[in-house]
This record gives sequence, structure tokens and C-alpha cells, in this order.
Amino acid sequence: MSWNRFKKHFLHSADLGFSMDISRMNFPDDFLASMEEPIQKAFSDMEALEKGAIANPDENRMVGHYWLRNPELAPSENLQRAIRQNLEDIKTFAANIHGGHVEGASGPFTNLLLIGIGGSALGPQFVNQALGHPQRDKLALHFFDNTDPDGMQTILAGLNGQLGRTLCIVVSKSGSTAETRNGMLEAQAAYTAAGLDFAKHAVAITGEESQLDRLAVDQGWLKRFPMWDWVGGRTSELAGVGLLPAALQGIDIHALLDGAAAMDRVTRQREAKKNPAALLALMWFYATQGRGEKDMVILPYKDRLMLFSKYLQQLIMESLGKESDLDGKTVNQGIAVYGNKGSTDQHAYIQQLREGVNNFFVTFIEVLRDQEGEPVPVEDGFTSGDFLQGFFLGTRSALHENKRESITLTIKQISPRSIGMLVALYERAVGLYASLININAYHQPGVEAGKKAASSVLKLKKKIIDLLRSSPESLTVDQISEQIGNDSDPELVFKLLEHLAANPQRNIAKTEGNDQFSATYVFSTSAK
Amino acid sequence: MSWNRFKKHFLHSADLGFSMDISRMNFPDDFLASMEEPIQKAFSDMEALEKGAIANPDENRMVGHYWLRNPELAPSENLQRAIRQNLEDIKTFAANIHGGHVEGASGPFTNLLLIGIGGSALGPQFVNQALGHPQRDKLALHFFDNTDPDGMQTILAGLNGQLGRTLCIVVSKSGSTAETRNGMLEAQAAYTAAGLDFAKHAVAITGEESQLDRLAVDQGWLKRFPMWDWVGGRTSELAGVGLLPAALQGIDIHALLDGAAAMDRVTRQREAKKNPAALLALMWFYATQGRGEKDMVILPYKDRLMLFSKYLQQLIMESLGKESDLDGKTVNQGIAVYGNKGSTDQHAYIQQLREGVNNFFVTFIEVLRDQEGEPVPVEDGFTSGDFLQGFFLGTRSALHENKRESITLTIKQISPRSIGMLVALYERAVGLYASLININAYHQPGVEAGKKAASSVLKLKKKIIDLLRSSPESLTVDQISEQIGNDSDPELVFKLLEHLAANPQRNIAKTEGNDQFSATYVFSTSAK
Repeated sequence: MSWNRFKKHFLHSADLGFSMDISRMNFPDDFLASMEEPIQKAFSDMEALEKGAIANPDENRMVGHYWLRNPELAPSENLQRAIRQNLEDIKTFAANIHGGHVEGASGPFTNLLLIGIGGSALGPQFVNQALGHPQRDKLALHFFDNTDPDGMQTILAGLNGQLGRTLCIVVSKSGSTAETRNGMLEAQAAYTAAGLDFAKHAVAITGEESQLDRLAVDQGWLKRFPMWDWVGGRTSELAGVGLLPAALQGIDIHALLDGAAAMDRVTRQREAKKNPAALLALMWFYATQGRGEKDMVILPYKDRLMLFSKYLQQLIMESLGKESDLDGKTVNQGIAVYGNKGSTDQHAYIQQLREGVNNFFVTFIEVLRDQEGEPVPVEDGFTSGDFLQGFFLGTRSALHENKRESITLTIKQISPRSIGMLVALYERAVGLYASLININAYHQPGVEAGKKAASSVLKLKKKIIDLLRSSPESLTVDQISEQIGNDSDPELVFKLLEHLAANPQRNIAKTEGNDQFSATYVFSTSAK
Repeated sequence: MSWNRFKKHFLHSADLGFSMDISRMNFPDDFLASMEEPIQKAFSDMEALEKGAIANPDENRMVGHYWLRNPELAPSENLQRAIRQNLEDIKTFAANIHGGHVEGASGPFTNLLLIGIGGSALGPQFVNQALGHPQRDKLALHFFDNTDPDGMQTILAGLNGQLGRTLCIVVSKSGSTAETRNGMLEAQAAYTAAGLDFAKHAVAITGEESQLDRLAVDQGWLKRFPMWDWVGGRTSELAGVGLLPAALQGIDIHALLDGAAAMDRVTRQREAKKNPAALLALMWFYATQGRGEKDMVILPYKDRLMLFSKYLQQLIMESLGKESDLDGKTVNQGIAVYGNKGSTDQHAYIQQLREGVNNFFVTFIEVLRDQEGEPVPVEDGFTSGDFLQGFFLGTRSALHENKRESITLTIKQISPRSIGMLVALYERAVGLYASLININAYHQPGVEAGKKAASSVLKLKKKIIDLLRSSPESLTVDQISEQIGNDSDPELVFKLLEHLAANPQRNIAKTEGNDQFSATYVFSTSAK
């Protein structure tokens, strides 16, 4: 690398303890100037958003995640008060749990089971791993983030005998997300089986008057915290969704918020070359031609940041992966995101990054502070941390040599403040990039189709079960499809029958036929 | 979907309890016929490989991972005997550990700390999660898979007070992988600090006569197991690397091997349309145009398979991501792989998959058996498992509707046998695909460049430290670069100094200058 190009494109903020280096992105000298008009428009869009404009037009919603760490920016006193009150409530509740003033059936809480999916789990999982410590955490966190019964049973097996000291937080804005509802019911069944009153161990984070909210009131849960329609799931880490589990774990949530607010200050300025969020968005635009032509590989050289790529996968892909732009034009936008951590991933796929298909750009994340306490000398006076940095610098240079581009972010250390900064940086980069490509970053219209299809699948399954229960005869897929008629799709019928037959408790017995599709299925309580 | 197309392209093996559906890949009717000649050549290459040909020409090595589950295929009696003996040794050692005949300083072993990286960790991590159970596992597994000192300290904090019952396995073929060597030294330091003799808790899996092998002999470690040069790291899950931790955890390793052997039998047949590994390779070729033009998204609908995509990321990207083909032509091959698990990922990035940039194909993995024991009814007679399948089928159909292609693999249940099958399926698909695109799947020449660069980085760091230690004056980056001369790159000098200054134990004090690059650095024992 040229030292001059590096110096020219190295942005440092002493206040943040944060640097960004875009010198290894090979954009031409006039690129930034050529993007001046669009990035200024993006800044204006962002200003309007922060002032309470309807930045999510399809859903007719304001987009207010920046207010969470700056309540005075919220466009009404009611909102300001709600944000401050929620923060107070979280702190008070956490203090009550830590002080043993609120406890479980078997004593003070030692575990926390969070039930949520997508934006209601990825942020908490990331922060839990980034800032947790097995000996210092006030509660140990566990997650139900799927509707896999075996997955949940495995988590519950790990909590065996401890449910009476396990606090359970159920997170769902609508209160009707099926995976989360199922998780809650599976947890409830486990508490009940252990002779415990689930309600006395349960907390809801949900929209006011949602199904979950009313259930929590009816059953007398310990506490309810709000989810607001102006905070999207993927930007809810600094709302109650992220702050409550963090506070319960013992993380300094004020430092998380302060870090985000500090990054907001720096990334609000309209001089792009001093604004890391703007530079990030511009580099994405440069690298992918504003059309998602390259994948974004996230490579933090720090174990604690391993889940950051998963967190960003949601934040970026769900925000940017859109069919239509704001003018209704079909654009099929998005940027694919993947990555785990270095130097581990060097032993997994750096081979392809260095030599293979050049369809990506890397974002390295460097953490300067290696560890607490005295390092172990490993070789020639070097520490494990020296090697970690050495591998990062070596790999970056080996990629650069082969014309593979990279951005480098550097933070001084892993702390609640720096984690808050990273979250805020990417939230704003996503918002600015969305303006550059003229899309709504705050809705997710494509998710509905799969949910609707899933719901028809379950309806069909019910018809199949009902038919088999009332049919004395053993039937083939084609016979069942024919009898069900209209709604039926033989392939789906086949898939559903195979699933039923593989689960003995469902009492559907399968008899093999001459070929795969002439097997017959019958209801039989002896199928077990 | 058309029921007829589905039936035509649905491959089922009753023996394996395995199905594969390629009907949602939109290849033209003549595609398979058009690939007949190349796939027959791939079968022949594979036959030669299995017979002991030098299938890794650059490194002049045989490629023998298929022999591990079929020792009688190995091309010499010595090799056959070595494979069988190793398996016996693993079983005997595991029995001794489980029976308490070999124990730690504080009693029978309850924990296992595996130190390895890349192929020496990804397989064991995947299998540990896929087949583990908190109440049934005979040892609880922990991993050092990086040279991040803080990451290692965090694992050790979780093992605090238990090291005297923690068995430590160090895995490195060459015995000189720096990350693993560092991990071993960090672990050793922790055992020593706890007043324990590391050697009495340590096992090596390594190449004969390697640095690690000699160390283990010198220090009198509990046991050494071999790693052979004819088994690559990314195909070592069914060698000692994977089998020893699995056996210690209590997993039926014979079932793992049997599953792989059964899949080998089915995927050895030369009729492509009956061979799932061949069909997989052909679908990759179709989807990516044989040039990595699309990403492979791996979506298992099962929590236990969450690490499979990470395992495949290595297996596929490190095998296929190559600059040159076997004739020395520059081809820049590879397929990018990412994914976690469904339905969780539906709440993360399915938005982009359905609506956004169409640069991927999905591989769904369906598991028919939901769980052990009685399911919890969640709605209308449905179980959490019904919802999981419903979301899988719904999402697959929503993607198909928008012309996003997918392959579906179905296994009856998660078991040692089915995990062995999946490993074998992908090992062979990778090998066949490598033949289709005429590359060596078994070397990793691109990894060396980063390692070499890292080594020069450390050399430069040593020069900087030596210079500062002997210099009474505080120096700038430019001054230090100049004094070091030849080997110096000011950007690297800057990065290394920033790292040293951020770690107080390194005794390098930084004084800020007028700008970011005029700061000065000096050796000072009061820097702490």
C-alpha cells in the first residue's frame, strides 16, 4: 500500500477511539466527488427521518431508533417521556432482580431464557457474547430462537432443575409471531411440568395491547415492557429488546447508549469524508456498483465479535434486499453478508478469498486491546494477541496483493461503549445506503409471502389429518390429494405425510408401495 | 411445482433414509444428458482417487478420507492396519476415560478442551452440537479455535476450578500451526497457574514426528494419536480429529462411520441420476455456470444442524476456491457458502432472498423426525415441529414463486448415522465437482501467502520493539520507518505501534501529535 493513499483515506476519531481505513478499496480519485450530490440527499433524508418523517412509507411509520440514545431528538414530549421512562423501568427491574427483591420459586434468579426470533434475538445474542463473562455475568443467558422442538428441549435439558431460578423474557412486537408463541408454550409446559407457575417467572416485551400483552396481563406476569411501532426489529438492540437482557446480564447499558450517541454525533455531519457511516455506505456503493454485485465478508479479529456478522446479516440484508425502489421500479437490490471471525476463518475460506472467484469485499474489524491482565508469552516475546494482529495484517496484505478489496474498522477495545458505536455505525450506514439506491430500508414486504404459504401448508395438513382420521382405508398420496380436492398439491401432500409418518406420536402409519409414490398412509393409534 | 417434475427429480434411498429433490432447480431437460461425459470422467477420477492415486498432485499426496470408513479400500495393508488400530485406540482410550481408569488431578474427567483451528475444529464443533445433549454427554466440550487471548481467557474462566477434571486435546497435523501452538501454551499456563501438571491432562493428535508429537513424548502426555498426510484437514471429521472428541463425548462413532460408508456406497454408483453426490455436483455446476456465479445458501431447518453451513463453508470454499486449474490455467474458481438455520433465518435475510438480488441458490435440509418424547400441542393440534416444517415448505414455495432456485435434502432424523451420511455426501460432491471444473480440491496454496505475510509482520514488530527499547527518544512513525530501513512499510509500522500502545503491558507510551501521524512512541516501563 502507498503510505500516502493510506494517510489520505484513514479516518480517525479520537473522541470515539475509532478509525476507518478505506485505502484498500480501489475507487478512483474522483469517486467521492462524483457521489457528493447523492450523499447529500442521503444526509437530508436522514435528517428528515431523525425529525420524525414517515421514513417507512409502506407501513406509514416513523423510524425512531436514533431517538433511543437521544430522547431529546424524539419529535414529541410523549415519545421522549416514554423512552426515558422505559429506560428507568429497565434499570429498576434489573436492580430488583439483582437485589433478589423479585425472585423465582426457588430463589434469586441466576438464568435468563430469552424467547424471540430475528430482531428479537440476534442483537441480544450478539451483545451477550460480545460483553459476557462466565464469572461476572449476573444472569446466564439462554435463547429459544426457533420453533424447533428438539432445539428447545435441548436448552431446557441444560436448565434442568434450575427453572425455579430462571427468568423468562418473551419478545414479540405483534405478540403473534408463531415461533415465539410456540417457544413460550414449550417453556410454559416445562415450568408447569416442574411444578412451577410460569407467570411468576415471565416478562413480556411487546406492543401495547398485543395478543402477548393481554396474555401477560391476564396471567399476571412479573412485568411488561413496551415495543414501539417506530422501532423496527432489526434496529431494536438499543430499545428494550436489547437493553433489558443486557441490563439483567449486568452490562452497563448507559455506556451502550452513550457509544451509540457518540457515533451518531460523528456520523450526522454532512462532510462525507469525515463521516464513517457515509464512507461505509459509499464504499458499499462503489464495491457493489450500487446493485449488490459483490458480497460483504465481515471478518472481525476477535472472538467476542463472532456473532456480529450474523447480526449484520439481518440488519443489512433485510433492510437492503428489496424488489422495488421507492418509485415502484423493480430493482432487486441487496448485498449478501457473511463471515465469522479471524484468524479462524483464514483456515476455512481465505483460500477462496485470495485465489478464487473475486465476488466480495472484506470488512476487517480490528480491536487494539488484546486482553485484560498479563499476557502469556508464546514465542520470541510475542503474545497470542501479536499473532492475532499479525494474521489480520498478513491476510489483509495477501488479499490486497491479489486485488481483493477491503475496508478496515479499528476500535480500541471491546466495551459496552464500542459495541454501541458499532451498532450505530451500521444502522446509519444502512440508512444512508438505502437513500443512495432509493429504497425503503425499514419494511420487509417479502417476508409475508413465506408466512402466508406456511399458513396454507398447515391448513392443508389439517385437512390431511382430518381425512385420515375419518378414513378406515389406507390411502396413497394421489388418493388423498384427489379427496381433498381444490387446495391440494400432491407434492405438498406427500411432504406432509412423510413428516407425519416419521413422527410416531402423530399416529399415521405408512405402508411402503412398489415405488416411492405408491406408499399408503392410514390413521392408526398403534403407529407408535 | 408440477407433481410430475417433482416425481421425476426426487431421488430417494430407503436404505439411507435419505431423499434429494432437485425439481426446483430450473435446469433444462437436456442438462443431465449434456453432462454425461464430464460426470463419467469425474467418476473415473474418483475411482482412481479411492484406489490410491496421487489425487493431490501439488503436494504429491494420496487422498484417503474414504478409506477411514472402509479400511479394506486402503491401498496397502499397512494403511488398513493403521486405520483399524487407530479406531481401536480411540475406543480404548475413551473407555478408559469414561471408566475413570485415566483421570485428571482432581478426579474423573468431566470436561474436554479441544485446541485446534480450521479442519481441526470445525468438524468436532459441528458434530458436538449436532449430537450433543447437556445431560447425556459424558464430557462437556469446549474449544480454543483462534489465537485471541481474550477468547481463550473467557473459555478458561468458564472452566475455573475444573481444570483438574478437564482433558485437553491438541490437534495439529504439522504441530506448528501458530494459533494452536499458542492455544496450547495459554492452556498450559492456566493448568500450571492452577497447580496442575498439564502433561497429565493432555493428548495430542498430530503427524508422526511433528514438533507437537515430539513435545508430547518429551513431556509425557497421556496419549498421542496420529494424523496422516493422506487425510486433509477439511475431510478429517471421520479421522481421529473428529472421532476422538466424539467418542469421548459419548457419541456412537461406529454409527458415524457406518452412515458415511452407506452414503459412499450409494454415491459410488456411476448412474448419475441415482447418485445424490453426483446430482449435487451437477446442480452446483448448473446453478453457478461452473464458475461460482451464484452463492450457496445452506438452510437446515433444525437447530442441531446450525454449524453445518460453517463446516461446509470450509469444505467447499477451501476445496473449490482455486486460482489455477489442473492445467495451470487461471480460472479463479469457487462457490461462496453461507447460512445458519431455518426458520430463524427467515427473520434475518429471507427478505433479500425472496425479493433482492438473485445471486444464490438455496439448499434446504429437512429433518423428518421432530423430537424425542411427547410434543407440546401449540395450536389447533399442531406441534412446534409442524410449524417448523410449515415454515420450511412455505418459504421454499415463496422463493420458487419468485424464481429463486433450491435443492432439498431430507433425512429421517438427526443421528450419528445421518450426520456421517451428510459428511460423506458433501465430501464426494466436492470431489466430483472439482473434476467437473478440472481443479485440485485437496490443496490450499492460497493460505500460505497470508501466513508468510503475517510472519514478516511479526519480524517487523520485533524490529520496532528492539528499536524503541534502545532509543531514549520518542519517535514518530516516519522516524521509526526510516531507522528500520529496507523492510519497513510506514503503514505497517503505524498499525503495529498503535497495537503496542493500546496494550499497557507492552510498555510503549504514545504521545499525541498535531495530527494522527505525528504522534510519537517511546519505550517506558511506566506506560502501564
